[in-house]
Amino acid sequence: MTLPARAQEPGTTTTIHTDGGGTVRRTVLPGGLRIITESMPAVRSAAFGIWSAVGSRDEAPADAGASHYLEHVLFKGTRRRTALDISAAIDAVGGDLNAFTAKEYTCYYARVLDTDLPLAIDVVSDMVVDSVNRPEDVEAERGVILEEIHMRDDDPGDLIHDEFAAALYGDTPLGRPILGTEESINALSRDRIHAYYREHYTPPNLVVSAAGGVDHDEVVRLVSRAFEGRLTGDAAPAPPRVDGEPAPVDPRTVVIEKDTEQTHIILGGAGVSRTDERRFALGVLNAALGGGMSSRLFQEIREKRGLAYSVYSYTAQYADSGIFGVYAGCQHAKADEVLTICRDEIARAADEGLTDEELERGKGQLRGAMVLGLEDTGSRMSRIGKSELVYETLLPVDEVLARIDAVTLDDVRAIAQDVLTAPQALTMIGRF
Amino acid sequence: MTLPARAQEPGTTTTIHTDGGGTVRRTVLPGGLRIITESMPAVRSAAFGIWSAVGSRDEAPADAGASHYLEHVLFKGTRRRTALDISAAIDAVGGDLNAFTAKEYTCYYARVLDTDLPLAIDVVSDMVVDSVNRPEDVEAERGVILEEIHMRDDDPGDLIHDEFAAALYGDTPLGRPILGTEESINALSRDRIHAYYREHYTPPNLVVSAAGGVDHDEVVRLVSRAFEGRLTGDAAPAPPRVDGEPAPVDPRTVVIEKDTEQTHIILGGAGVSRTDERRFALGVLNAALGGGMSSRLFQEIREKRGLAYSVYSYTAQYADSGIFGVYAGCQHAKADEVLTICRDEIARAADEGLTDEELERGKGQLRGAMVLGLEDTGSRMSRIGKSELVYETLLPVDEVLARIDAVTLDDVRAIAQDVLTAPQALTMIGRF
Repeated sequence: MTLPARAQEPGTTTTIHTDGGGTVRRTVLPGGLRIITESMPAVRSAAFGIWSAVGSRDEAPADAGASHYLEHVLFKGTRRRTALDISAAIDAVGGDLNAFTAKEYTCYYARVLDTDLPLAIDVVSDMVVDSVNRPEDVEAERGVILEEIHMRDDDPGDLIHDEFAAALYGDTPLGRPILGTEESINALSRDRIHAYYREHYTPPNLVVSAAGGVDHDEVVRLVSRAFEGRLTGDAAPAPPRVDGEPAPVDPRTVVIEKDTEQTHIILGGAGVSRTDERRFALGVLNAALGGGMSSRLFQEIREKRGLAYSVYSYTAQYADSGIFGVYAGCQHAKADEVLTICRDEIARAADEGLTDEELERGKGQLRGAMVLGLEDTGSRMSRIGKSELVYETLLPVDEVLARIDAVTLDDVRAIAQDVLTAPQALTMIGRF
Repeated sequence: MTLPARAQEPGTTTTIHTDGGGTVRRTVLPGGLRIITESMPAVRSAAFGIWSAVGSRDEAPADAGASHYLEHVLFKGTRRRTALDISAAIDAVGGDLNAFTAKEYTCYYARVLDTDLPLAIDVVSDMVVDSVNRPEDVEAERGVILEEIHMRDDDPGDLIHDEFAAALYGDTPLGRPILGTEESINALSRDRIHAYYREHYTPPNLVVSAAGGVDHDEVVRLVSRAFEGRLTGDAAPAPPRVDGEPAPVDPRTVVIEKDTEQTHIILGGAGVSRTDERRFALGVLNAALGGGMSSRLFQEIREKRGLAYSVYSYTAQYADSGIFGVYAGCQHAKADEVLTICRDEIARAADEGLTDEELERGKGQLRGAMVLGLEDTGSRMSRIGKSELVYETLLPVDEVLARIDAVTLDDVRAIAQDVLTAPQALTMIGRF
């Protein structure tokens, strides 16, 4: 097991492992910045990302939406570049430049041809370390975020996920939407956004990751140059978010009247945390219950009865807790029937677990999806960058595959009895 | 230039070209079935697809939605397999199995590890050549498709594209939605669906394509076995859909009252056909006008004024015609302002064309996106399969890149004056 980054001597590089055709290396720079890369032979593109350890979970109620708002503002300009300079640089080489904000982290990334990697490193690093957050840009972006909220509100299949988080976690950091609310966005000032930036975007709280046709030493050299003047002091990389007591849940039933064509339903409760050893068993259970076309829910609700087009189960993991939920969209008149089938299938899986065949199929599904995903430079960059941020260290792909393989019927039954019998929240959007 | 497939001797194989690291080969089998593969060295996954030359454009008004309905029904079972057998086979190896229906073609595909390619070929081929289309399965799937229509109706950002096609092309094959309507889906009988299948899913109208870690001869052997008994006679592969007179447009303004949070807008008109030599110039124009974050529309509407979260221009190409359109979602009270900016930018581009810098950036954007896309086995499979179906022959990647490079400011000005001054349809969904 590799040591965590904060135990690694600043200014040194370690080879974490070689796996699935790539070599993963990590350098810790003075000031506590981590750089992790995975070189993939014979790949001509590169994905580059900078991960920040801050997300909507870190926001006080008055700051709701600040992490995501800031993510937008970082595209608006640095001391050296306007917003147009930033986007034009990556558009000109046909790359993708984007970012996303989650509850526990934020990521800025670009995917480019390997020959354009120096450009991508320069642009993305500049955005993250040298944003000016001009008041007029913060103001213009407020309108953009309000429209993002309105767009989310116009798509009930999207809105219901935010409503469900609120129904499960209540008015707590995990229960509040990443986008914030119209009120909180209108109330956030430029100074508050800028202070949030200065507070959270520090080298110990950032992880730089790159994957594809990349040379580790070259990435370290380019990132060091882009972060020049900021990599001083003896701060160590920040440890992962504390994995303490699970975030409290307060599962409620929330019915939202809306003039929709379908009733949109999520039924679910607490799952497991990101570090819970049972997450592999829950992954297999999820695959069998609602993770694919051969799953029980898909077969019962869509294949046999034709009640829904979209029906699936899913999991989410956080540092201390998680979600297991089931989504379906159906005719208003069939909502009770669909909900009854969901409840019956959840109860049956909790009582009986899975069959041998489902266990094997579920494992195959997780293994295959993992290995297929590794061909994409963006997926590899995400895997190593996010792991560095949220785990003590990176689990090699072979080790992940071995843990999936090791899941037994008893493991699945145990997690099913725990997760599927926990108190459940229910959210429905439709005409009632 | 390689000969079209129908001029190739049945039972023979030809190497079309070697390009971007892959070798493209084509075999024409007796009965008129084409198999085209691209082997990508050092890639461990494979994408396999079967393309049918039929789409919603081929439907009489009474059959509206039949191509897509049939696509669903083909997942419901063959003489050898139930619906569960089909999905379980691919889920068990962690593959993706899916399909999509377009206006001019339909595609069924799987992406798997290369060692699972024989399984994928067997399953997808079985679905396409030996579907039983049982009445009870057609009946159950009717409900699923109605829910797919309802889900589309619940997302105005999705619905508006179908409404815009109707506003541009009217009640014609290109103007009608791929999904059909509630009425047409309710009226389609099992016998009609089955007849549609027998009529259109014949070897000359199908193209088999595979890309990734694939061996051409092995693919030919496995596909020949899966199509056993059907590859007889001397039919030649079907030629591409006739590229005749452009489909007539009848651009109208359609305003749809709906209780949405945003006003969703599409403004656009006729573009160019798939074989139009000016498509590369239109691609560059599209990139500069609304194709990326550095584009004029994104800069004017989102970056400077903060009026929209989602704003972009796009093109669609068909055998004889195409679309150039602009989408934006904004506050109801700002819809007029957004529409005015769209119209001004369209008029300005028609009058003045692009700057040198925009031309170069637009070309770089198209080139980079194309090359980056080639790392994905699914993209390669689509490129070669779709090209074989809709063009006389496949344009090598280097040739596509050269044509993009050759676009001049005059080419862009000419296409802008043509496309951007054509009569425009306007569709708006919102509260008025």
